Amino acid sequence: MEWRPGIGSNPVITLTTDFGVGDPYVGMMKAVILSIAPGVRIVDLTHGIRSHDVMEAALVIGSSHSYFPKGAIHVVVVDPGVGSSRRPLLAVTEQAYFVAPDNGVLSEIHAGSTRMVWLELTAAQYFHHPVSQTFHGRDVFAPVAAWLSRGVEPERFGSLVDNRVTLRLPEARKSGRDGLAGTVLRVDKFGNLITNIRAEKYRERLQAGKFMLSIGGHQVHRLCRSYREAGGGEPFVIWGSLGLLEISCNQASAAGRLQAGVHDEFELRFQ
Amino acid sequence: MEWRPGIGSNPVITLTTDFGVGDPYVGMMKAVILSIAPGVRIVDLTHGIRSHDVMEAALVIGSSHSYFPKGAIHVVVVDPGVGSSRRPLLAVTEQAYFVAPDNGVLSEIHAGSTRMVWLELTAAQYFHHPVSQTFHGRDVFAPVAAWLSRGVEPERFGSLVDNRVTLRLPEARKSGRDGLAGTVLRVDKFGNLITNIRAEKYRERLQAGKFMLSIGGHQVHRLCRSYREAGGGEPFVIWGSLGLLEISCNQASAAGRLQAGVHDEFELRFQ
Amino acid sequence: MEWRPGIGSNPVITLTTDFGVGDPYVGMMKAVILSIAPGVRIVDLTHGIRSHDVMEAALVIGSSHSYFPKGAIHVVVVDPGVGSSRRPLLAVTEQAYFVAPDNGVLSEIHAGSTRMVWLELTAAQYFHHPVSQTFHGRDVFAPVAAWLSRGVEPERFGSLVDNRVTLRLPEARKSGRDGLAGTVLRVDKFGNLITNIRAEKYRERLQAGKFMLSIGGHQVHRLCRSYREAGGGEPFVIWGSLGLLEISCNQASAAGRLQAGVHDEFELRFQ
Repeated sequence: MEWRPGIGSNPVITLTTDFGVGDPYVGMMKAVILSIAPGVRIVDLTHGIRSHDVMEAALVIGSSHSYFPKGAIHVVVVDPGVGSSRRPLLAVTEQAYFVAPDNGVLSEIHAGSTRMVWLELTAAQYFHHPVSQTFHGRDVFAPVAAWLSRGVEPERFGSLVDNRVTLRLPEARKSGRDGLAGTVLRVDKFGNLITNIRAEKYRERLQAGKFMLSIGGHQVHRLCRSYREAGGGEPFVIWGSLGLLEISCNQASAAGRLQAGVHDEFELRFQ
Repeated sequence: MEWRPGIGSNPVITLTTDFGVGDPYVGMMKAVILSIAPGVRIVDLTHGIRSHDVMEAALVIGSSHSYFPKGAIHVVVVDPGVGSSRRPLLAVTEQAYFVAPDNGVLSEIHAGSTRMVWLELTAAQYFHHPVSQTFHGRDVFAPVAAWLSRGVEPERFGSLVDNRVTLRLPEARKSGRDGLAGTVLRVDKFGNLITNIRAEKYRERLQAGKFMLSIGGHQVHRLCRSYREAGGGEPFVIWGSLGLLEISCNQASAAGRLQAGVHDEFELRFQ
Repeated sequence: MEWRPGIGSNPVITLTTDFGVGDPYVGMMKAVILSIAPGVRIVDLTHGIRSHDVMEAALVIGSSHSYFPKGAIHVVVVDPGVGSSRRPLLAVTEQAYFVAPDNGVLSEIHAGSTRMVWLELTAAQYFHHPVSQTFHGRDVFAPVAAWLSRGVEPERFGSLVDNRVTLRLPEARKSGRDGLAGTVLRVDKFGNLITNIRAEKYRERLQAGKFMLSIGGHQVHRLCRSYREAGGGEPFVIWGSLGLLEISCNQASAAGRLQAGVHDEFELRFQ
């Protein structure tokens, strides 16, 4: 695995969980990491994933990991199956390392790498003991990430596996003669409705002409380049920060205005 | 005090407060710390303690501190008496340092150490001036922790004291011929009801046989080893991440299902 | 600009945004920073600014920045005009650096410095590419701060400008013969009502004699030195942690008790 990225002299571990910040769970993970790797940098990506929502976590880590330095170690713990037979995994790409349960949470990790291998974490000497049945974030994933950051070879944590659980985020699909059916994947803090219409695939088509987006009885037919372009309250679409089409309002919550949320479907019709 | 733990070359300061993360108060504490000790590592344990809830903070720091590296400095600021005559304290154990107001917030610090001394923080040259009457987290506790991390001897901050305020978390007590009366100490983000039934004391007894737990008109009679063992919605008990018995539901909030919360009492009857 | 503060060997970048902590936006900013400046220290001041509330951010950074080490780099991203023609700015004082949109969010930065210059950020080689229209926090402000922390001279980022958008926080003003009309600027997590009555201007006058503060049909006539001085539930005023007069209750929310909030006005009458 000589193609794997170097860890470097300033290793970074990122944390993405559904733990929130009101409990000491994230702090405990950091405690375990620092006990093993006192010099590692720990970055919270977010702990605001909805409880047990593996799909949301897959979207969040999938759209964020490429911004981190090469060799970063990403720990993703949204883990409703903790303590059951689901396997703990380590994924290695040419860009980064990912430590997570085998539940599909790494399904959107593919950008920027042609190589990717998966290992099952079985080497218990790298776990924090006693290993609880309820908190592998602290007892398995955090310590493995810490040992990785110290240079332990991936192969030492377990053996290669060639199958794994994969989730598919809902893809935009053709609808009628000249339309798309899309889905709201996420609502952010500002009330932006983040959809599954990907810029890399549909940017040109949307730029080219007129369209009508229908969601829950509301129509949107304006594409803006910035939030400020639109007047107060008028909903519009915009290519957002994650490379996905967002339905937004200028200084207001589109989710509130349009009474729309995660999993809601919409139609996008080109004219 | 030659038995006190070394601070090491990668000192760690942890912060536990009821300040939340929406105000700049935590950031101000970090600013003061970094102005004194630019190289220290700061870890947020949590700032989500309920406002003024000294008992909750005692539970959280008590169940978390042992995961941190030896020599860590724990700053705990839940401090409704700030500015009054309550004393600021430094506690030193063989494992760690604790900086906090004398209001019982360190009552659960005892595990893993046979030695423990308490000092009153009086040496004002280690405070941030002017010392406000409303924010000793910033003006007293943060700078003292920072100076500690730089190697200032504990005795320099003040004199030993031999009394202090102690809080007692409600203990599970005998109830009837073969039962226990317990209390919900905390509800976490997932809606798990964290109780005062300690694994170290009751694990074997609960494992051994049938039981019935009654809380607010609901009955629970199943002990699971992992969340996944139970079907959707069925409440069960499980030994949780803090070493305490928790009442949980698989992928649902037990607090919501059972309409139960902090301070609620329950009965555990062995059959 | 040889008077500008040195960055030092332990550079600090602080982040103040309205992004919340539930989305990956803050984590993406940190990712970009660490990709450029792996050794820099990043401190979250707060991400809990109300969405789009430039005034609140101005107050928060204005009252907090002086606690950080000299040479700190403050990134403030409350940026409803992102992607429009509003300029990105770098401000340099004798104490610190500030990177922010030109929308008034730096209006309260003046304490402790007689010199202050403003530059427009135009040197795109220091941006993260492609530069989105929706997230200059990630694509402009974060990378500029990171390059600054590595020692790039301020002049390299763009040219001096001599005008900028300035906001004025509402100032307390005379009311009647012997009174003041004030405004609630902010409500903190504890329900303290933070007002625009500044200690530096009014401390002596308030200390000197009797007064009556009227807010929404309620009267407050007690000045306390600490929260504990007052009995349960009784509202009082106190000089708070930001150097501003606060209306508070002992262990209760003054905002809740007095049914008051941001932008509410009150009258302070001396007797």
